[in-house]
Amino acid sequence: MLMKNKLISDLKKELPCVLDTLEERYAYSQDATNLRQISNIADAVVFVETVEDVQRVVKIANKHKTPIICRGAGTNVVGACSVVHGGIILNFSKMNKILEINRDNMTAIVEPGVVLGDLQKEVEKLGLFYPPDPSNLAVSTIGGSIAQSSGGAKSFKYGTTKDYVVDLKVVMANGEILRTGANTIKNATGYNLGSLFVGSEGTLGIVVEATLKLIPMPESRKVLSAYFDTVEDAVNAVNSVIEQRIYPATIDFMDKNALQTVEKFYPANLLTDKEAMLLIEIDGFECSMNYQENIIVNILKSCKACEIQASHNDEEYNKIWTARRSSMGACARLKPNVTTDDVIVPRENLAELVLGIRAICEKYNLDVCMVGHVGDGSVHPQIPIDYSNEDEYRRYKLAKSEIYDLTAKLDGILSGEHGIGSEKRKHIHKVVNSVALDYMRKIKKTFDPNNILNPYKIF
Amino acid sequence: MLMKNKLISDLKKELPCVLDTLEERYAYSQDATNLRQISNIADAVVFVETVEDVQRVVKIANKHKTPIICRGAGTNVVGACSVVHGGIILNFSKMNKILEINRDNMTAIVEPGVVLGDLQKEVEKLGLFYPPDPSNLAVSTIGGSIAQSSGGAKSFKYGTTKDYVVDLKVVMANGEILRTGANTIKNATGYNLGSLFVGSEGTLGIVVEATLKLIPMPESRKVLSAYFDTVEDAVNAVNSVIEQRIYPATIDFMDKNALQTVEKFYPANLLTDKEAMLLIEIDGFECSMNYQENIIVNILKSCKACEIQASHNDEEYNKIWTARRSSMGACARLKPNVTTDDVIVPRENLAELVLGIRAICEKYNLDVCMVGHVGDGSVHPQIPIDYSNEDEYRRYKLAKSEIYDLTAKLDGILSGEHGIGSEKRKHIHKVVNSVALDYMRKIKKTFDPNNILNPYKIF
Repeated sequence: MLMKNKLISDLKKELPCVLDTLEERYAYSQDATNLRQISNIADAVVFVETVEDVQRVVKIANKHKTPIICRGAGTNVVGACSVVHGGIILNFSKMNKILEINRDNMTAIVEPGVVLGDLQKEVEKLGLFYPPDPSNLAVSTIGGSIAQSSGGAKSFKYGTTKDYVVDLKVVMANGEILRTGANTIKNATGYNLGSLFVGSEGTLGIVVEATLKLIPMPESRKVLSAYFDTVEDAVNAVNSVIEQRIYPATIDFMDKNALQTVEKFYPANLLTDKEAMLLIEIDGFECSMNYQENIIVNILKSCKACEIQASHNDEEYNKIWTARRSSMGACARLKPNVTTDDVIVPRENLAELVLGIRAICEKYNLDVCMVGHVGDGSVHPQIPIDYSNEDEYRRYKLAKSEIYDLTAKLDGILSGEHGIGSEKRKHIHKVVNSVALDYMRKIKKTFDPNNILNPYKIF
Repeated sequence: MLMKNKLISDLKKELPCVLDTLEERYAYSQDATNLRQISNIADAVVFVETVEDVQRVVKIANKHKTPIICRGAGTNVVGACSVVHGGIILNFSKMNKILEINRDNMTAIVEPGVVLGDLQKEVEKLGLFYPPDPSNLAVSTIGGSIAQSSGGAKSFKYGTTKDYVVDLKVVMANGEILRTGANTIKNATGYNLGSLFVGSEGTLGIVVEATLKLIPMPESRKVLSAYFDTVEDAVNAVNSVIEQRIYPATIDFMDKNALQTVEKFYPANLLTDKEAMLLIEIDGFECSMNYQENIIVNILKSCKACEIQASHNDEEYNKIWTARRSSMGACARLKPNVTTDDVIVPRENLAELVLGIRAICEKYNLDVCMVGHVGDGSVHPQIPIDYSNEDEYRRYKLAKSEIYDLTAKLDGILSGEHGIGSEKRKHIHKVVNSVALDYMRKIKKTFDPNNILNPYKIF
């Protein structure tokens, strides 16, 4: 207790905003993972405003051998911001400035607390485009998206955060500042340290500034919704579309449960009697839109789509995407709690994964709403659950483990865009080979010998 | 000498094809870097055929504490395959099988010795596309392109090798086999080890199999050539094109010297009295090609282009690209030797870089032909040189050093797509901060404690 008091007084001496009441520490010790119970409570919450503030926190954390858990909006769903054994929550919400949007270089320089959707809006004003689009982009931050290697619906055509990080400024575990690259679009000068930090969940260094690649904004976009009587038909249609030299921006998926649950929560005229829906977004030059639409509609018809609709204006476009992005919120209405997941397989195994997850949930008598970026082979099973029901929780844990076993059997991995955090670390050995895990641990030890940066995560 | 004999006999005992005559060892101790004199001669050249062969070589190299220098076609231009202090050349030209092209997953699995252009042709037969396109793609291998993080003209729109590596199988310095990912397009499961190996120039592990991402092949493509009376006008036009929400596949550049030199070597009706040419490739749906062309032509005209030509068929398309790719070969006719380089800056500093390089070469009385992927901010100054002329060589070395200083001053880096190798390692500190270099060295030591994997490269 004396040690903790000393930690708090050290922090308060050096930093402008430190929270230390029980309520405050409790509030910041959980994230959107929606755990049954939080594992532990942070010792303090620090709002940093400058790079030097971050260095000061690192110095104090080293002195006290106390973990640092970085936090943007806390929207991650794998316990990446959860507190396992005390520590300091390092909150970036005040480091939220867009430092530069450079049209000539097609890059943006931002602080980690910038909200992803805000950056998108700003660059779009200049005819530019930052494609990563996790469903929570209205609140989630760039720092979090770098930590978790966020993707989103548009990853199919445009890739994930990793593909847009040009340069990072990072405070290392010893307080030094490392710069990973330069403000150039390509870099073959030494090791790709930037890519190593992306997706490392705050375990290797603290990103304090990011230079991001932007691309020209497509002139036009449109979303097609296609309904199917079976999940297999929907998945087969995905492959057929791709084989026609069309490159949709997104190929997303909702199953019947997801359609019904969302429609009740956010009426968007979804057809709730169908087994599956594909959301296919096309983009590009205005003059190519009808051509793309016609080809895709013909393929979908030949692949047994029983109903096809298209957005005709921004309002319809936004409505259907808002519906899709609401699926987790909608599921939260079914039971007191809801969790999501993020498994991914080579696309040829996708139907087997979707049907397998459904069978596992049936076996354990659990509801499941399935959405996903099926163009990538990525599925998000959302399971409503009542945590106060001990038996349901037990069945839920068994089901999750079986879902990971199935994913491994289908040559997949445990996360395409959410990360591993504290929640899936027990399962990572199912998909990552032991030699790779060894080298990950060696890198962690090399970068963070005192194990102060978000420990007890990933592996 | 006895030690060397023991090394050779160990290799011959375990491996199917070992070359050890002086002529053979000499021939494989140089690469396309075209050094003034090779630094050293390898002890042996081993042609591997299987992953187990590679593991056997690693075991023997550890026993003898001898370097391993991996080699595909030896086309790299920074001494990445050069022999600094003896060692074993590990030649991959017999591990050249395309193991799978999977249309559903849109991935290819290949051995490292596969020639890049061969893979492109095979995937194109299926309507698929592997975009990285270094100028030497007719002979260079996938293994080499992974080691050096190759790009090419199409990097502007499509990215570099790093963006297409999905999964790698790697023989580590201790002989263990590491797999970096899975055959899935996205991955947020642990650290991005794959990206760390890409561009590491064979210093961290030996890639023995790669899974590569493929994308749908664009329906149509066309190249526009625009000539300008000044370099500044050409560079300014690049920014204007990008600002119009057009996303060309390539924006390449040749200066007057390059135009004149290439036209003599490979007549392609280039206009040799102009100061600069831009090569702008557009691609996409057939129905959008005229639209794109018209917009770009109008922009180019308003940016003082004095002549604009367009390819009308495959023959014209191939002719202009063959001319552009011949620039290094053409320069080799001017003097007994030629070298190329690969500096890159944020695009806003591009005109200053191009004019600065020209001024430096003038100061040191050196010829220079400049080509480059100017959409990326990337310039390849090609300097013809007579190595037997001591004074010219001295001036050349001074000019190179000044070119790197200028690049650093313009916030650029030393390589966008060739790597650092043995040739630029003395200069890397000019652009990579010392903390980043420290961590690169720490990673190297962690991965390769005996320093047997391509030592004396990068840093």
